[in-house]
Amino acid sequence: MAEVAELYPAGIHEAIAAGIRSDELTVTTATLDEPEHGLTEERLAQTDVLLWWGHKAHHLVDDAIVERVQARVLEGMGLIVLHSGHMSKIFRKLMGTSCKLKWREAGEKERLWVVNPAHPIAAGIGQYFELEHEETYGEFFDIPEPEELVFASWFAGGELFRSGCTFYRGRGRIFYFRPGHETFPTYYNENVLKVIVNGIKWAAPVQTAELTFGNVKAMEDLG
Amino acid sequence: MAEVAELYPAGIHEAIAAGIRSDELTVTTATLDEPEHGLTEERLAQTDVLLWWGHKAHHLVDDAIVERVQARVLEGMGLIVLHSGHMSKIFRKLMGTSCKLKWREAGEKERLWVVNPAHPIAAGIGQYFELEHEETYGEFFDIPEPEELVFASWFAGGELFRSGCTFYRGRGRIFYFRPGHETFPTYYNENVLKVIVNGIKWAAPVQTAELTFGNVKAMEDLG
Amino acid sequence: MAEVAELYPAGIHEAIAAGIRSDELTVTTATLDEPEHGLTEERLAQTDVLLWWGHKAHHLVDDAIVERVQARVLEGMGLIVLHSGHMSKIFRKLMGTSCKLKWREAGEKERLWVVNPAHPIAAGIGQYFELEHEETYGEFFDIPEPEELVFASWFAGGELFRSGCTFYRGRGRIFYFRPGHETFPTYYNENVLKVIVNGIKWAAPVQTAELTFGNVKAMEDLG
Amino acid sequence: MAEVAELYPAGIHEAIAAGIRSDELTVTTATLDEPEHGLTEERLAQTDVLLWWGHKAHHLVDDAIVERVQARVLEGMGLIVLHSGHMSKIFRKLMGTSCKLKWREAGEKERLWVVNPAHPIAAGIGQYFELEHEETYGEFFDIPEPEELVFASWFAGGELFRSGCTFYRGRGRIFYFRPGHETFPTYYNENVLKVIVNGIKWAAPVQTAELTFGNVKAMEDLG
Repeated sequence: MAEVAELYPAGIHEAIAAGIRSDELTVTTATLDEPEHGLTEERLAQTDVLLWWGHKAHHLVDDAIVERVQARVLEGMGLIVLHSGHMSKIFRKLMGTSCKLKWREAGEKERLWVVNPAHPIAAGIGQYFELEHEETYGEFFDIPEPEELVFASWFAGGELFRSGCTFYRGRGRIFYFRPGHETFPTYYNENVLKVIVNGIKWAAPVQTAELTFGNVKAMEDLG
Repeated sequence: MAEVAELYPAGIHEAIAAGIRSDELTVTTATLDEPEHGLTEERLAQTDVLLWWGHKAHHLVDDAIVERVQARVLEGMGLIVLHSGHMSKIFRKLMGTSCKLKWREAGEKERLWVVNPAHPIAAGIGQYFELEHEETYGEFFDIPEPEELVFASWFAGGELFRSGCTFYRGRGRIFYFRPGHETFPTYYNENVLKVIVNGIKWAAPVQTAELTFGNVKAMEDLG
Repeated sequence: MAEVAELYPAGIHEAIAAGIRSDELTVTTATLDEPEHGLTEERLAQTDVLLWWGHKAHHLVDDAIVERVQARVLEGMGLIVLHSGHMSKIFRKLMGTSCKLKWREAGEKERLWVVNPAHPIAAGIGQYFELEHEETYGEFFDIPEPEELVFASWFAGGELFRSGCTFYRGRGRIFYFRPGHETFPTYYNENVLKVIVNGIKWAAPVQTAELTFGNVKAMEDLG
Repeated sequence: MAEVAELYPAGIHEAIAAGIRSDELTVTTATLDEPEHGLTEERLAQTDVLLWWGHKAHHLVDDAIVERVQARVLEGMGLIVLHSGHMSKIFRKLMGTSCKLKWREAGEKERLWVVNPAHPIAAGIGQYFELEHEETYGEFFDIPEPEELVFASWFAGGELFRSGCTFYRGRGRIFYFRPGHETFPTYYNENVLKVIVNGIKWAAPVQTAELTFGNVKAMEDLG
């Protein structure tokens, strides 16, 4: 859409990348059109945290790549799922639910409240912050109860939504963050970018032991 | 206040009792003014689930009675804490936090959304329900992350609130339910009463083993 | 195997069915060999709680049937997954993880400890109970952190295992229960049968509102 | 006891301090005998994370100091509670439960299994680690269900125990870690020290917003 192209001339992915790139974070992008969607074995192996934004093309994502990403998350790669990414194959696969929700494009005000002020993902954020115009999402959001609920959103039109949710899967950590409709300048918002950076730091791999599964003849064999 | 007396001529406790009494539930009341606040050892021993509503007189509740109620909850008695009961000594003691929140008396609309539709406490309730006028409560609500979040409230004035929360403590189960300001006819609302009854059924004691603690010389001694 | 046939002459499914059948529960069975594995749309629609035991034939279960069962769970049907059912397609799909674990067939003693004595699934069970000989399962068990951990198992050989785990998915509730290797008389054990019955009662559907998803033009349209 | 004095000639507190002190961590100690137990307002205000070990003298800790520590935790200070500290006034106050458990002094082997391999507190630790001789702790451990269960312990004598547990309270994070009986050289064990350091890093304060509570006349007043 012309509207989106004007807001995000280089694409949403490049806007996010530019907004979070720093001395601390090396950020590159991958898109649907690239071979293997840019998510080759080699590249994923080098990735600490993967951000996922998608909308109308979820069905075009190759199932084999989705399984590859899932395997990497279980191995320890962090995953940040943004906005309409809630319907991506990878998020639904990792949640085990439909991940459906209610929505409305009415440019309503969204106010995100911090409901877990001990969580590092809320660092540097006020008790709440606002986005003047956003797409509305409403409950029930069909996800498993989050491990930690960090943000919940109030919308002027009457809905609320669990908008900052963490999940553990295997050795990997996942953060779902709601805002980011393509027709609003959400990814230029300082608070939104701060939360994404916090999420990346929180989800970064930790050096826990490699996991082994299967037959253990005796405890001693585990070493 | 005259306003409250007109709404609840026999007191809030009697209004709730009348609203939930049925062939299924035997309901009696106890008040601050009674000896031991009506919560003698004998009476608590016979109580399956205790509902707690309090507001301005929390500090008048005897610490010894609070400890007695806590002990009974750990032993298996259910506890339903209503509205301003969030600042009661017993709730704060069982939570370990300040249980503070933000509030405003502005008669705003409250819309309670079901965010865990698998939970028995939400049985018979729509995807959401409304209270035309209520006191507003806002986050951060200083409680431990609930075991299960069943309801979250949207308020017309801009706040949201985790308004239906469950907690496990020892052999006991606790349900906090937000609505119920004394100047509104909340406890005559059919949905509110239904949720309270659901909460009572959910929190009723289950026949799990009595707990033992302390020195166990050898596993065999546990019997 | 002759050993299994001797222990469970009518099959494990019939042994479990016989062990839990009562005036309270109507129990029927379905097996892999039946058309649609006995899990037709009609039959699932009439099922309140489905028990799943499987072992070597997980890969023979039709993906379409797995998706049908998942949809029914999200709609509200309870699901009890037993022992080696941890590697079933349906459990892995609902968890979003590999569901792998460590195991050993050594007939070791298993002692199951109640770690949530407020939970109805532990009703009628002592502080722990024992199975003289069972297959050993060991951590890490690759599941999402359970909503509630009811039992944890100690094994004589040195392992422990989160052996009674609950999960919420959509309107449905899931209980994973570890014991039940085919070479041991586990499904004749009174405590095991009691826990399974408790699990069924806990996971039974509750009459919460049907969920709607998608575009909501305005709050008023939700009715 | 002579035995303890020989193992920990400068006291357990100094052994732990020496074991975790590094360029990264500035570590000082405070003891029961100091004025205000060494926990003055000034000192607590400068403390990022407080470690608590106590055993027979819990009742000698001043209630006013306990309330001061609780307030600091809610404000954001991290708290690591070690071993018999489970019965400390501060831990019980923050949990809201009795915090009782079963125990046996038999010098049994303890094997600590990682049950959440995505958690930073398990960094650098194998899939499990062992302590050749430790005091045995057994379930039921009367705490609220932990926010995250990181370690669970297997004991040779037949017990298991949730031995690495996290909790959020206000802006503060709490980690309970089981090992550390005074008659064993546990606090010289490399893995134990590593977990304590990981716990400290995990519980360190994050710069979230200061919390406000009470009457909010209108959203705009929140600023």
